[in-house]
Amino acid sequence: MADPHPPQAFAQGSPRVLVAGATGFAGALAAHLLWRHPRFELVGVTGRSEVGRRLDDLYPRYRVPLQIEQLDLDRFFPGSPSDPESRLDAAVVAYPHAAAAPTVGALRELGTRVVDLSADFRLSSLATYEQWYGPHPRPDLLDGAAYGLTELHRARIADADIVANPGCYPTAAVLGLAPLARAGLIADVVVDAKQGISGAGRTFDDTTHLSMAGENILPYNVACHRHTPEIEEQLGLLGAELPVQFQAHLVPLDQGELASCYVTPTRTVAPEELRELFADAYAREQFVEVVDTPPGTRDVCETNYCRVFAAADGHTGKVVVLSVLDNLWKGTSSQAVQNLNVMFGLSETEGIV
Amino acid sequence: MADPHPPQAFAQGSPRVLVAGATGFAGALAAHLLWRHPRFELVGVTGRSEVGRRLDDLYPRYRVPLQIEQLDLDRFFPGSPSDPESRLDAAVVAYPHAAAAPTVGALRELGTRVVDLSADFRLSSLATYEQWYGPHPRPDLLDGAAYGLTELHRARIADADIVANPGCYPTAAVLGLAPLARAGLIADVVVDAKQGISGAGRTFDDTTHLSMAGENILPYNVACHRHTPEIEEQLGLLGAELPVQFQAHLVPLDQGELASCYVTPTRTVAPEELRELFADAYAREQFVEVVDTPPGTRDVCETNYCRVFAAADGHTGKVVVLSVLDNLWKGTSSQAVQNLNVMFGLSETEGIV
Amino acid sequence: MADPHPPQAFAQGSPRVLVAGATGFAGALAAHLLWRHPRFELVGVTGRSEVGRRLDDLYPRYRVPLQIEQLDLDRFFPGSPSDPESRLDAAVVAYPHAAAAPTVGALRELGTRVVDLSADFRLSSLATYEQWYGPHPRPDLLDGAAYGLTELHRARIADADIVANPGCYPTAAVLGLAPLARAGLIADVVVDAKQGISGAGRTFDDTTHLSMAGENILPYNVACHRHTPEIEEQLGLLGAELPVQFQAHLVPLDQGELASCYVTPTRTVAPEELRELFADAYAREQFVEVVDTPPGTRDVCETNYCRVFAAADGHTGKVVVLSVLDNLWKGTSSQAVQNLNVMFGLSETEGIV
Amino acid sequence: MADPHPPQAFAQGSPRVLVAGATGFAGALAAHLLWRHPRFELVGVTGRSEVGRRLDDLYPRYRVPLQIEQLDLDRFFPGSPSDPESRLDAAVVAYPHAAAAPTVGALRELGTRVVDLSADFRLSSLATYEQWYGPHPRPDLLDGAAYGLTELHRARIADADIVANPGCYPTAAVLGLAPLARAGLIADVVVDAKQGISGAGRTFDDTTHLSMAGENILPYNVACHRHTPEIEEQLGLLGAELPVQFQAHLVPLDQGELASCYVTPTRTVAPEELRELFADAYAREQFVEVVDTPPGTRDVCETNYCRVFAAADGHTGKVVVLSVLDNLWKGTSSQAVQNLNVMFGLSETEGIV
Repeated sequence: MADPHPPQAFAQGSPRVLVAGATGFAGALAAHLLWRHPRFELVGVTGRSEVGRRLDDLYPRYRVPLQIEQLDLDRFFPGSPSDPESRLDAAVVAYPHAAAAPTVGALRELGTRVVDLSADFRLSSLATYEQWYGPHPRPDLLDGAAYGLTELHRARIADADIVANPGCYPTAAVLGLAPLARAGLIADVVVDAKQGISGAGRTFDDTTHLSMAGENILPYNVACHRHTPEIEEQLGLLGAELPVQFQAHLVPLDQGELASCYVTPTRTVAPEELRELFADAYAREQFVEVVDTPPGTRDVCETNYCRVFAAADGHTGKVVVLSVLDNLWKGTSSQAVQNLNVMFGLSETEGIV
Repeated sequence: MADPHPPQAFAQGSPRVLVAGATGFAGALAAHLLWRHPRFELVGVTGRSEVGRRLDDLYPRYRVPLQIEQLDLDRFFPGSPSDPESRLDAAVVAYPHAAAAPTVGALRELGTRVVDLSADFRLSSLATYEQWYGPHPRPDLLDGAAYGLTELHRARIADADIVANPGCYPTAAVLGLAPLARAGLIADVVVDAKQGISGAGRTFDDTTHLSMAGENILPYNVACHRHTPEIEEQLGLLGAELPVQFQAHLVPLDQGELASCYVTPTRTVAPEELRELFADAYAREQFVEVVDTPPGTRDVCETNYCRVFAAADGHTGKVVVLSVLDNLWKGTSSQAVQNLNVMFGLSETEGIV
Repeated sequence: MADPHPPQAFAQGSPRVLVAGATGFAGALAAHLLWRHPRFELVGVTGRSEVGRRLDDLYPRYRVPLQIEQLDLDRFFPGSPSDPESRLDAAVVAYPHAAAAPTVGALRELGTRVVDLSADFRLSSLATYEQWYGPHPRPDLLDGAAYGLTELHRARIADADIVANPGCYPTAAVLGLAPLARAGLIADVVVDAKQGISGAGRTFDDTTHLSMAGENILPYNVACHRHTPEIEEQLGLLGAELPVQFQAHLVPLDQGELASCYVTPTRTVAPEELRELFADAYAREQFVEVVDTPPGTRDVCETNYCRVFAAADGHTGKVVVLSVLDNLWKGTSSQAVQNLNVMFGLSETEGIV
Repeated sequence: MADPHPPQAFAQGSPRVLVAGATGFAGALAAHLLWRHPRFELVGVTGRSEVGRRLDDLYPRYRVPLQIEQLDLDRFFPGSPSDPESRLDAAVVAYPHAAAAPTVGALRELGTRVVDLSADFRLSSLATYEQWYGPHPRPDLLDGAAYGLTELHRARIADADIVANPGCYPTAAVLGLAPLARAGLIADVVVDAKQGISGAGRTFDDTTHLSMAGENILPYNVACHRHTPEIEEQLGLLGAELPVQFQAHLVPLDQGELASCYVTPTRTVAPEELRELFADAYAREQFVEVVDTPPGTRDVCETNYCRVFAAADGHTGKVVVLSVLDNLWKGTSSQAVQNLNVMFGLSETEGIV
């Protein structure tokens, strides 16, 4: 089979990328990272609100001097092969769940490769999707999508036309648990995750108002968080098929996320074995750092790094894994760029170190 | 046996109380609560630093207009029965672990009843104490001490001369888990606790500097927190003898604490049974509120209330218990006042609602 | 003239008070303070949203177990003299500007005395009001209203049927500047005010979202803040008729406000004279504390105190006055209770110390 | 005169730079910026504490993998012309005031060019320095030093061997006021500055502890801030010789600073004139942005940009200027790099956009 995405396709210039849904936190950061990226050309930012306003007016720090447009695939990006200026090589879609799939489908029909930040293509099982999110608008596209946890699915991502960027919690939890899952060591697991308020997005309510979210620690979605099946599916692929006890909490910071994972191992794990297991798992990864003291989220703030710490608790026999990342960066938008780098054959660290 | 603390002992006036170690967060708040308490008379505040400074200069909000003195039991409170003005009926001791016991002992020899905020008298097992804290300065006093989790040990506290005020994490965790422990329902438990920076006390270092503690979520003391044996001992007294997986985290707020408890039950627990178990357990408690939505720490900020929420997770079979309190109030100083109320036969809510 | 509000009017019971608009920050806090007040009876809380929800569900910390009702003066509080249970002695109205006046008017027609938290009755000049706020719904009531800066207008407040509770910025600024204004010492003044996010109220937008308001210092309403004429009118009454340069800023905390005032004096003011001027001005005030080190807002957080510091700058010849308070307490709701205390002949500190 | 710093001096490689005092916030950030700088080579980081620890252990986010060394100019950087590997072309000195000058002197004797972050070389007047800071350790070096506010002193900086990096408050205030000063428009000025807690540096005390600095607005150094003479000297050089009323405040964020400047103009200034004055002043500046809505500090967080807004207040006749920057970046360390870029003939934006 011919390589579907030969590098020479971009010989005449950088891959041209659009961010659809750039008014939210995730889309705006993706636009920022792509705007300053040395190898991609950000050719447009769209939104369903704030049309006509410049993105650097809405998000001054991100300094993207483009005007927010309404998404109009016909007019905006005809994708006509005869006009290289109208080419749209890739898109990051930052829409809510269920709203994303139709746009992803339309972009695919133009030949554009998509990194989708919603949950629409994260679960391989349609039944599981519909149980948590309702009817799927484009089930036909599920099979072609790759799960965008770069470190675990790099090869599939390289070839995929649709990459489902993972949820931030699954990114932290699965990177933290993967070495144990692969080694068949997880008999039971509790994931207690904490996240800054940016995780709630550009939503205006009691959970984001500083006078209510400040000085608060707020658990939410008890026993029913949508990231649970995503974590379970990924651990299952690694060999650990089991229900995961997952609980999320909002804490009063902006960006940062910690997944504290408590594993009941299938057998006793010695500290030395644990150390080697994690060291080996990530020895060749640029963006996963195995550390030997408990990491804070501040260590990785505004970076694409995930820091992982693992300890065997001699008293309880359990294994404690602590995994931190920036929920908007490695948890969302910089991982989207990492995936674009992989999809377009660039160095994986380009534009995000 | 004659009542050792007859109410008439205070017929001539309010019980006279001293706060030893009033320069730290816990001691200062205890002094504040006692200063405005309608039934106690705060007769002095002592400190090993800041001597001569007024407490309301060090803590303006607390508005206690007393000068910080060096603790001098001979001169300061001779405790002579002939001089009612020198009587010292009670003391709150807010010293670090191991430093507290000798002072508690000296106060006891004066006939003063003590609420001790340190860990020195929390563990009934000397061996366990010495394993975690080193040699105990006054092991002879261990037997006479009551564990000051008011809701669980009210009767003993009423008669005790030494009350060991619990750690803030054990207060949250044990109040959350007690109904399950008593019912024999805990087969395994993970306690993931999060706390504001005031939990680190008036300590000046990387963990409390706003530019480092802010925008951070920081796990600490992995697999070795001193509150673990305290929680285990209390759960054991309730019938749940098992090792507890306890993990603490600092999050960027001032006051507030959440213990998220993940229980593997000994058998399936139906939601209705769970609801009744918790409702019954705390039906007659003023300060423990069983709620039916996940509580935030802000709900109980600067109060003596503990809010508890329990849910059965049908997916995993586990029981999730969320327990919030203000680490400086119910977690420390207002619980000390609650205990003093009990010790001196006052209404338990006096001065703290 | 007969005392229009003889104390015996309430011989049969406590004054009965309603809070209209209890779903916002200011109304909710007023309800909290009145609920726990030893001398007032809070008989209802109303709102235009959240009807049917309990106030302690919306604001758990405030612990007011009343259901939010729609305001219905006919049905709700007929005010019939024959039915003491229907009596409504007082109301705190916490509505937006212009929305308040009609309700204040309707309450007055029932004989209810009102503390109005809006700006509708703060300015004695109708022309100035209409320049800043638009048409006044009830100009006929302007004359009867007292300006509720308690320390400056105590006598009028005692007799008034409508008390216009001041803006939080005018409270801080005018208390800070009054001693200089009365002494004829203000030739020119700049007021630079900073306030926590609660000052924006229960408004959900970019200025209150923790991920945007956090890590930000945001000046707003440059050269056009509505509190300017209020400050100018009050300083004018004290003898200082001059335009005031007023500028407001939002800073990332919840409750707290500082007015930094820079006065060009009409003549040189010696430090000793300045000290005496401020000490004398507030010698008999319970709630204004003249301090000799620069105060922080934390010193007065959740209290009815205003702390004032004044210094003569030998280098520039100017006088710097720093005035701190809690914008929701002394800046709004606890000052409303202070005013109610004055209006009903109670001790001024009742329920707010 | 021969160019003292010919570009070819670095033909063999990048300029080699040392950061002395890299354990503090300013030095650490300078090291971070130089480590990732495409044209400088960071050859060492020194500290008086934490020797032997890696800088990326102390500041994980900055990711500078160098070990902190004790500064030893003899051993560490002999500066021998025969050994290119020992060459030290430049140093950033991040020491406290008075401690810096001797090290700056020693580095100069090695031929190393220095950007000094202390106040030791900021004031041209020795008398003024000694009035505020005490005896000057190296008054002989004062004459040769350039004041490192890049936009105002670019030409002198290019040739200087010692560049005195400005204080963060003077940077914000002078950039905001320079257009008015040059135009002879300042008759009187009040500068009210607010800054995040990082401005207090890696100092551990009541002003930086999150439980005391959080939820606080704290004015400090009333009528005696050391940045006052620095602002006055710079405004004087621009033609505005007058005493400046300067007041600083700490507010609870990490990085960010706003100088709110209130100018009494020498004559009426029309809005249009004001707009042109500022637009013209910074038309060719990359890092000063004149904006037409009030800027927040978040707009420039972690950038080298300063945003300036000016408005004429028709009511008072005053001019309000609001100037924001990141106190650690443009206020300190990224401006140091901007200066190094100028000193070594590089593009001024290199490594800091």
